[in-house]
Amino acid sequence: MLAEIITIGDEILIGQIVDTNSAWMAQQLNNTGIRVKQISSVSDGKQHILKALKEASERADLIFITGGLGPTKDDITKNTLAEYFGVGLVENQEALDNVMRIFAKYNRPMLDINKAQALVPSNCEVILNHNGTAPGMWFNTGEKIYVSMPGVPFEMMYMMEEEVIPKIKTLFKLPAIVHKTILTVGEGESFLATRIADIEDSLPRHIKLAYLPKLGQVRLRLSGEGENEQQLRDEIEQYAALIVERVGENVGAEEDVALEKAILDFMAGRGLTLSVAESCTGGYISHLFTQHPGSSKVFFGGAVSYSYELKESILGVKKATLEKFGAVSEETVVEMVEGALRNFKSDFAIAVTGIAGPEGGTPDKPVGTVWIAAASAQKTVRKKFTFGSKRLQNIERSATAALFMLNTLLKDVEK
Amino acid sequence: MLAEIITIGDEILIGQIVDTNSAWMAQQLNNTGIRVKQISSVSDGKQHILKALKEASERADLIFITGGLGPTKDDITKNTLAEYFGVGLVENQEALDNVMRIFAKYNRPMLDINKAQALVPSNCEVILNHNGTAPGMWFNTGEKIYVSMPGVPFEMMYMMEEEVIPKIKTLFKLPAIVHKTILTVGEGESFLATRIADIEDSLPRHIKLAYLPKLGQVRLRLSGEGENEQQLRDEIEQYAALIVERVGENVGAEEDVALEKAILDFMAGRGLTLSVAESCTGGYISHLFTQHPGSSKVFFGGAVSYSYELKESILGVKKATLEKFGAVSEETVVEMVEGALRNFKSDFAIAVTGIAGPEGGTPDKPVGTVWIAAASAQKTVRKKFTFGSKRLQNIERSATAALFMLNTLLKDVEK
Repeated sequence: MLAEIITIGDEILIGQIVDTNSAWMAQQLNNTGIRVKQISSVSDGKQHILKALKEASERADLIFITGGLGPTKDDITKNTLAEYFGVGLVENQEALDNVMRIFAKYNRPMLDINKAQALVPSNCEVILNHNGTAPGMWFNTGEKIYVSMPGVPFEMMYMMEEEVIPKIKTLFKLPAIVHKTILTVGEGESFLATRIADIEDSLPRHIKLAYLPKLGQVRLRLSGEGENEQQLRDEIEQYAALIVERVGENVGAEEDVALEKAILDFMAGRGLTLSVAESCTGGYISHLFTQHPGSSKVFFGGAVSYSYELKESILGVKKATLEKFGAVSEETVVEMVEGALRNFKSDFAIAVTGIAGPEGGTPDKPVGTVWIAAASAQKTVRKKFTFGSKRLQNIERSATAALFMLNTLLKDVEK
Repeated sequence: MLAEIITIGDEILIGQIVDTNSAWMAQQLNNTGIRVKQISSVSDGKQHILKALKEASERADLIFITGGLGPTKDDITKNTLAEYFGVGLVENQEALDNVMRIFAKYNRPMLDINKAQALVPSNCEVILNHNGTAPGMWFNTGEKIYVSMPGVPFEMMYMMEEEVIPKIKTLFKLPAIVHKTILTVGEGESFLATRIADIEDSLPRHIKLAYLPKLGQVRLRLSGEGENEQQLRDEIEQYAALIVERVGENVGAEEDVALEKAILDFMAGRGLTLSVAESCTGGYISHLFTQHPGSSKVFFGGAVSYSYELKESILGVKKATLEKFGAVSEETVVEMVEGALRNFKSDFAIAVTGIAGPEGGTPDKPVGTVWIAAASAQKTVRKKFTFGSKRLQNIERSATAALFMLNTLLKDVEK
């Protein structure tokens, strides 16, 4: 079964935003057993949209459209779809109730242009938008299915996950597709590949291994396609077990989960608590933990100590240490992590101090120099890293390295 | 002058990578006065690529193609282009020298498939690849120009900047394109649209207004096309001034910049300093600031005080306040922000405490209840917000609201 994705909106064509929606949708569709044939980004122009719809319908069975559903004049997707299907617009009561509910909730007066959001082409089924006012639309012409969704990522994502994908699954018999992901940290893609080459070579044709690298992490994803889902799942689990046995010390999680979430789950299950002391990561590690529901059971909080003074006052780093060894040093990071343990009274702590760049480097400590420590009451580990020259990458790599050091320290808990 | 971008490769269609190349290319082209009509991602299939080339050539004057130029079998762009133009492949000496130079540099043996990278369609001009082995190709058919480049971002970027854009500029007289963005906060898209409807209606045909909403923020973008760049810029500035005058209290910045970056620039220019006390935003606000180079000039740091205890110990919130009013209360947020000012010794501070969800809500204080405060030595402002039920959205909306309150407080500095 083939699909196409059409994204509508000038903001992609002028390069103001990167089209992340399409990649996400393509992933979801692939996981469902649907191949994406083409992704097209077109402008907010009627003739252009009409042409794109026609071209897509000549290649694919399912056409997914995002964007151009806002209440303002530059959004013309809805009217264009009505013209494409040769139908008029009708008011949809459910969609209207949804718009009214949202305006009532935020206690705002409703304008005519908001009310007009409940107008939809007469041949569509409405997909309710729980996160916004623009309804999604499902068109089944008998031959092809068209789905129009808002371009706002979380509105589109909710519709895809909760409504569109389940609906497609009930309509079509799709092959079973099973994925299994192993999250590895601290080893490059090509080194991993060499270490598991024989396992990879032994995979049957219907199971594929993909390497998905991200700064400091590589996800190994086994994907299989077949008729019998349970059999496929068992088979994939066997190969996954072989890989985990081989590269065990680099495994952060045996599921497709963020490393910090795997850590939170592990710690929550054992009643352990955590605090952090961040300098160059500037709150990013705290944010990684606290974005997850339930993180407050484990995460007490921490300090973002950008200045010398906050390192002293919140974390109790000694002035003499800072003056003698500098803020980016083994001595300072150890005092930071132990200060966090002591002052924040958690079972575990991590600390990061480094030079994220682009400024602040010296010949001795160039941009990208980062000291990281992880500690429990029993043990403190610390390590120096030399990352690159890019600020955001240094922040992200530092966070990943800190999480991995904590993860390794936590493995001692099991022993 | 119209352009299209075609990206070739299955990795985009299975959602493995996000197509960031196209957005970057679109930006470059727009800045040069070339409008991108469509962006298409197609698979590594010959017929599909041929069709995409034909469709693009019917709409645009310039066709940019990335990807599918690697040495392996799945890369078929070059042969497909030769077929499209009805020509054969010839060895290009410059391209061959380049491949040999790179292999010599890394001291690797050269294989036949590497040598084959110097074969190009006989009707193209080679664009040398200084960062890799695959040559870029420039086809001028007299009517249309086709440019084929590698999909590796830094190889493509270098070619575009150093070779392709300069070449286009010498060949064509291009119109001026001017964009002007106004960042607004705290007012929905439709309300803004209603408030500036008469200004929008008065825009001449060659200037367009787009609304680009994001949680709690709307970017208003005026885009104009014309002959005389200075005249166009003046004209757009006049309309921008009308909009700013109308919705001034909601304006966060008069350029296309993140709100926290506008704040950092404003504060850095005046030697002002900032600290934060975050509960439900969990480090996200600190991260927003610290991701920007040079933020350490303004940002001292702060506390992520998830637990009661850290609110007391780091921020000096009184135990009695927490017990009587709770962690999510006006009294607590005021003590948090004033504690941050006092303990972290900054000129300004912001504090956020709320229930991000999905758990932790009560009938009195449902999930989404957030208290935010901003303070200077002279003044403390505080406000209660009622956001929704989604954790990540609550975190992001809280951060945006906090930034906006700080921004408003900073405007007093100017008075």
